[in-house]
Amino acid sequence: MSRFLTPHTASLPASVPFVGPETQERLQGFPFRARLGANESLFGPSPKAIAAMKAAATEVWKYADPENHDLKQALAAHHGISPDHIAIGGGIDGLLGLICRLVLEPGTPVVTSLGAYPTFNFHVTGFGGTLIRVPYRGDHEDPQALRDTAAKSLAKLIYFANPDNPMGSVHPAQVVQDLVATLPDHSLLVLDEAYADLAPQDTIPQIDPNNPQVIRLRTFSKGHGMAGARVGYAITHPDLARAFDKVRNHFGMGRLSQIGALAALHDSDWLPQIRGRIQHARRRVAAIARENGLQPLESATNFVTVDCGRDGDYARAVLRETLARGVFIRMPGVAPLDRCIRISLGDDAALDILAEVLPQAIKAAG
Amino acid sequence: MSRFLTPHTASLPASVPFVGPETQERLQGFPFRARLGANESLFGPSPKAIAAMKAAATEVWKYADPENHDLKQALAAHHGISPDHIAIGGGIDGLLGLICRLVLEPGTPVVTSLGAYPTFNFHVTGFGGTLIRVPYRGDHEDPQALRDTAAKSLAKLIYFANPDNPMGSVHPAQVVQDLVATLPDHSLLVLDEAYADLAPQDTIPQIDPNNPQVIRLRTFSKGHGMAGARVGYAITHPDLARAFDKVRNHFGMGRLSQIGALAALHDSDWLPQIRGRIQHARRRVAAIARENGLQPLESATNFVTVDCGRDGDYARAVLRETLARGVFIRMPGVAPLDRCIRISLGDDAALDILAEVLPQAIKAAG
Repeated sequence: MSRFLTPHTASLPASVPFVGPETQERLQGFPFRARLGANESLFGPSPKAIAAMKAAATEVWKYADPENHDLKQALAAHHGISPDHIAIGGGIDGLLGLICRLVLEPGTPVVTSLGAYPTFNFHVTGFGGTLIRVPYRGDHEDPQALRDTAAKSLAKLIYFANPDNPMGSVHPAQVVQDLVATLPDHSLLVLDEAYADLAPQDTIPQIDPNNPQVIRLRTFSKGHGMAGARVGYAITHPDLARAFDKVRNHFGMGRLSQIGALAALHDSDWLPQIRGRIQHARRRVAAIARENGLQPLESATNFVTVDCGRDGDYARAVLRETLARGVFIRMPGVAPLDRCIRISLGDDAALDILAEVLPQAIKAAG
Repeated sequence: MSRFLTPHTASLPASVPFVGPETQERLQGFPFRARLGANESLFGPSPKAIAAMKAAATEVWKYADPENHDLKQALAAHHGISPDHIAIGGGIDGLLGLICRLVLEPGTPVVTSLGAYPTFNFHVTGFGGTLIRVPYRGDHEDPQALRDTAAKSLAKLIYFANPDNPMGSVHPAQVVQDLVATLPDHSLLVLDEAYADLAPQDTIPQIDPNNPQVIRLRTFSKGHGMAGARVGYAITHPDLARAFDKVRNHFGMGRLSQIGALAALHDSDWLPQIRGRIQHARRRVAAIARENGLQPLESATNFVTVDCGRDGDYARAVLRETLARGVFIRMPGVAPLDRCIRISLGDDAALDILAEVLPQAIKAAG
């Protein structure tokens, strides 16, 4: 341990929220045949985004615009709001870290769901916050319980993802709006909408962008298929949007990423196409699951969570045997969610491999 | 002001260490004719890096490898050290932020030079550290004074750049080695070597990578011409290198950036070519300065700092008039360094524009 660390950073584990598929490939000694574990978009980004990034490659000697001006303007127009409401960062992961840094002091209570996004928890712990975890209810996050727990614990942050990861479930817009309307005064709602581009449109809440108690998070990593570009953005009250300038790495955005995201946003034909392919893939993965005696959960995302019908040990065995056969998938980390495996959606070529491998994996899991 | 900020983050200014050239272009209403202000490499990256990024664009739907395994292995081989000594991050800017986060508590004293890299100061202030600034000595950072001030103030961090920005000066390797050998026990030396790829080779110190009191910072932004890709790395004791895993955004690297940097590193022909072009451009900028009655300082970097021979107000007038004529340059922020302007190096086309504009700017500055 380096003697220069603070007592707090010294106390943190050198943990990784997720082990990457490349690490697993190096350990197992062979590449995955299908990459269906990280909720990446196997359908890729808009061809216009690819073309824009290729064209910009020769200009990578330039830093990106630290104001993110053009992308911010385009996002504001897209959402029908002022650019003052928007803060851009290195994916939702990067923005979550900045939110925690802005808001948390040692011991500040934070409410999330038991089994929800581990990277949020990583940042909360990293900035000294205290996590309070509320159980899922029927494989959905439980907004009323999150709110009540926040009220009781004086939590400063409430993390709520709609649609949810890792279960793929979603609440109707009204449920989210009710949560927003009844937030305790001391709580800021971190509304992770990473999968909103792929959700039924009646699940996207109407929220006043001037509400000082809500910060919505969106990304180009999921529907737009640009996870490797690291572009996310927050929609919130201008006072909070501006606060990111206090702490963000102003020249931290990639230039090709900025340019690619802008081109992706301008290609209004792409997301509707992706939604169609996602619906097809949801049905196919659900069918593959049922053929194997497993129960697919309804999905509002680019993955289908599949109930293996027994306990966590069994699901972990199914996961292990699936990985061993060259198909990268993941699963929820805690009970009772860990009776499931989580399969990202892909094209038919990838799902053919899943269909081939899953029966073998289930047989081997016993 | 959002009520959710901590007292500390509320107290921080929403400041930007540097205003970007794009912002200046928007304000002035026309694009720069020559971009010579941000110490970017107008010579661009290796064609092999460009080709690798273009080829990888279609794979941007995948997250980057969070372990940075391949790049780390290649860097280790390049430097003849173990990968355990290396931490990779989003440029030196990103790594400086992580170092401050790992090491600083409210009020922790930090020593730097008066007029040195503002982004380091931004991160120190951002994590609550207290900056102590040591004057330059003869347009060089003053290692003995930095060390003595650190000893007296019990500073936990000493920031020292070799070569230096914004003056472009450099100390011989032995001076840096002497600093390393006489560090106070309580001080970690942050040795910013952003420009090391372009410096005379006898200025690159030999430092035991197992020394727990030194962290060297390198980047692909300068010599490698990939500022917009945001790839930097630290070389340090394995205990400190591993500590970055406690706080870094594990999936924060861009995939194209990783792949581009790896290709750049493998193209061993590129940097020697760039060094030749840099030497030519240093001579030409120095000649242009002298033709205009200004005094170029010796440069070990990809910019030439030019003494305008009068006070800061005069240099600011020269800067303003140069910008107004479409040439983006910058200048040091504080006296006595602010008698100078700073001109990044470029190809002859860009320097032709500089040669055309500088006499007009000086005339207008009066």
